[in-house]
Amino acid sequence: MTITRPTLLLDERTARGNIERMAAKARDWGVRFRPHFKTHQSAVVGRWFRDCGVDAITVSSPEMARGFADCGWRDITVALPVNLRQLDALDALAGGIRLGLLADCHEVLEALDRRLSAPVDLWIEIDPGYGRTGITWDHPEEVLALARAARERRMLRLRGLLTHAGQSYQCSSPEEVRSVWQQTAERLDTLRARLADAGIDVELSAGDTPGCSLAPRANGVDEIRPGNFVFYDLMQFNLGACRAPDIALTAICPVIGVYPERGRIAIYGGTVHLGREPLPATPGRIYFGLALPPEDQPDERFSGAAMLSGLTQEHGMLEAGERLLARVRPGDILRVYPTHACITASQHAGYRTVDGTEIPRLERAGDRGAG
Amino acid sequence: MTITRPTLLLDERTARGNIERMAAKARDWGVRFRPHFKTHQSAVVGRWFRDCGVDAITVSSPEMARGFADCGWRDITVALPVNLRQLDALDALAGGIRLGLLADCHEVLEALDRRLSAPVDLWIEIDPGYGRTGITWDHPEEVLALARAARERRMLRLRGLLTHAGQSYQCSSPEEVRSVWQQTAERLDTLRARLADAGIDVELSAGDTPGCSLAPRANGVDEIRPGNFVFYDLMQFNLGACRAPDIALTAICPVIGVYPERGRIAIYGGTVHLGREPLPATPGRIYFGLALPPEDQPDERFSGAAMLSGLTQEHGMLEAGERLLARVRPGDILRVYPTHACITASQHAGYRTVDGTEIPRLERAGDRGAG
Repeated sequence: MTITRPTLLLDERTARGNIERMAAKARDWGVRFRPHFKTHQSAVVGRWFRDCGVDAITVSSPEMARGFADCGWRDITVALPVNLRQLDALDALAGGIRLGLLADCHEVLEALDRRLSAPVDLWIEIDPGYGRTGITWDHPEEVLALARAARERRMLRLRGLLTHAGQSYQCSSPEEVRSVWQQTAERLDTLRARLADAGIDVELSAGDTPGCSLAPRANGVDEIRPGNFVFYDLMQFNLGACRAPDIALTAICPVIGVYPERGRIAIYGGTVHLGREPLPATPGRIYFGLALPPEDQPDERFSGAAMLSGLTQEHGMLEAGERLLARVRPGDILRVYPTHACITASQHAGYRTVDGTEIPRLERAGDRGAG
Repeated sequence: MTITRPTLLLDERTARGNIERMAAKARDWGVRFRPHFKTHQSAVVGRWFRDCGVDAITVSSPEMARGFADCGWRDITVALPVNLRQLDALDALAGGIRLGLLADCHEVLEALDRRLSAPVDLWIEIDPGYGRTGITWDHPEEVLALARAARERRMLRLRGLLTHAGQSYQCSSPEEVRSVWQQTAERLDTLRARLADAGIDVELSAGDTPGCSLAPRANGVDEIRPGNFVFYDLMQFNLGACRAPDIALTAICPVIGVYPERGRIAIYGGTVHLGREPLPATPGRIYFGLALPPEDQPDERFSGAAMLSGLTQEHGMLEAGERLLARVRPGDILRVYPTHACITASQHAGYRTVDGTEIPRLERAGDRGAG
C-alpha cells in the first residue's frame, strides 16, 4: 500500500467485530438497534451493519438521510432538532421512507404539521442533564404538553422520547459511565410514566457509545443509537469503553521532520486532516492523538507512543521518546490514533482498508456548493 | 439569499480591501508579496490577488500547488517541509512552474537532488522560536552547512532562509506581536550575515498575519507570506491585527433551539462546519466563535454577541444574553464570526458572496479519494 499523504486506514475486520458485538448486545437486551451513521457516513460501511441485521438508522442531517435513503435505507431518524429551513428536504424524504424527526418546542410541531405532505415519526427530545438540546428531564409538564400537542397534529405520529446523554464523554471511569446510563434511563422512564398516566404510550430512545458499550442492561430503554463504536478512538479507550485492538480507524501520516534535540517529530497531518479534539494529558495539558510506527501494535497503555501535542492547519507536532526518535526519519510514516474518530473521519472523503480498497464517504458537511 | 444550512458568507469588498492594504504595505516596504493561499484555496479569490499585482504565492501542499498552477500561477512556494512521499508530484510541478521548496535537513536535499528532473528554488526553513519545524535560529553552523550542501546540488537553487513566527498568534498585545516580528527578523538577519561571511547570499522570507498586519517596517525581510489576513477572524481581532469590519468571512447558521431558561441558543453548525479552534474567554474557559443576528454590525467590542462555548459534530451551543434570546426563534439564522478563519474555511467546499455568487474552493485536504 502506497501512502503519499494523510490517509485514513480502516480495519474492516475490527469494525465488523465492533458492529457485531453491539448488534448482539442489542439482541440480548431486546432493544431496537438504530446505529448513528454520522460516524462513518459510508454506504459500504452501512452494508456491514445490514449484514448484522440492522434496518433502522440514525443520521444528523437531511442531506445524510437523503444519502442513505438513496442507498436503500427505509427507516431513518434525523437526530438533530428540526432545522425549519430544510422542511422541503424533510418533506421529500417523508414521502419515501419512514422518517423520524426530533422536536423540543411547539412551534416546530406546528411548522411540521403545516408544511409536511406525508406523516413522520415524532420524537420529543429530552435533555438528560447534558445541557445541549431538548426539554430538560425535570420538566414533565412541558413534555406532557408537547406530547399532547404532537398527538393532535395530523402529520405527526408521536413515537417517543429521545435523548443523548453526551455527558458520558466527560466521565472519568466505567462506573461513572454506567451511572450516567442508569440515571438517564431512570429520568426517561419517569417521564414515560407521567405520559402513561395521561394515556400516552411512548418508546424510549437513548444511547451514546460509552453508555451502550459499558452498561450491563437496557434499563427500560427501547432503542439504542450509538455511532462512534464502529471505529472507537482514544476518548473511548480512556473511558474504558473499548480496548486498544477495537480501534478500527487510524490516520497514516508522512513524517516531514525529526528533531531529536527538542524531542519532536513533525508529521504531514494537521487540523484539516485529523480534527482538533482535545483529551487531557497531564494537568493543564491536552493532546490530539497518539502515534506509533504502523507495524507496532499498541499495548493496553500505548507504551512508547508519541503524543500529538500540537496541530496547525497541515502540520502535526509529536512529542516522542528517544526510542521512537531513533527509529523514524523524514519520508517514513506513522499511524495516528485519533482522539475522536467521528471528527477525524469527517475530514476525509473516504477510507482505505488494510487490503488497499478505497471506501468513499457520502458527501461531507460543506460539500453541497457553498450553500 | 436563501440559507438552509451552515454556509460561509464571504464579503468580497472587505476581502479585496484586506488584500489591497497588504499589497500596498508590501510595496511601501519594498518587499515581495507572496501571500499564503491555504487560507482561501480558491481560484476566484486568487484573481482578486492578481488584480492587486500579485504573481507569486505560497501554498501548503503539492496538491494545492497543482490546483493553483492549473489556474495559471507560475511562481509557487510549498511552505511545508518536503514530504518525501510526494516527490513525483513535486517533480511534475517543477517542470512547469518556478517551484520553491522547504528543507531543514541534509537527507531531504539529497533526495530532492536525486529524484527531481527539473531544478527548484530551495528555502532553508528556520525555526525562529516557534518550535514547529526548521533549524533552530541559534544554530548558525547547521544553517551554513545546509546552505553549502544545497549549493552543491545540481537540482537546487539556494534561494534563502524562510521562517514562520507562529508564536505571534499567542501574543497578548500588538506591542508583543511587533516585538516577535522584530526579533524574528533580527534572528534571520544574523543568520544571513553568517552566510554572507561564507560567501553565500540569501533572501529572507517571513510573514505571519499578525506580524505583517502590525509591524511598522520590514526589518530587512525580502518577502512576506501572510495568508489569514484575506479573511481575518476573532483571533486576529483579539490580537489587534484587524478591526471588526475587516473580518470578511463568517458562517451563517440556522437556529434549531432557543432555551431562555438556561441562557442558550442551539445552532445547526458544529465542529464539522466551523472547526474547533479555541480562544480564551474568562480564565479557564474557551470559546469557538461569536454570533450576532446577520443584520447587526459588530461594534469594536462585539457587544451583545453570543459566545459559541460548545461544539459537537453538528450542534453549536451559544451562551446568549436576554436581548438576543428574546429576538431569536428556531428557523432564524445567526452569523458566526470564526475564531480561526483558515480552519473554518477548510471545512467547506466553497463560499457564497453577499450578492449570492457561489465561489468554489479547490479540492479539500482529504478530497482525493482515501489516499
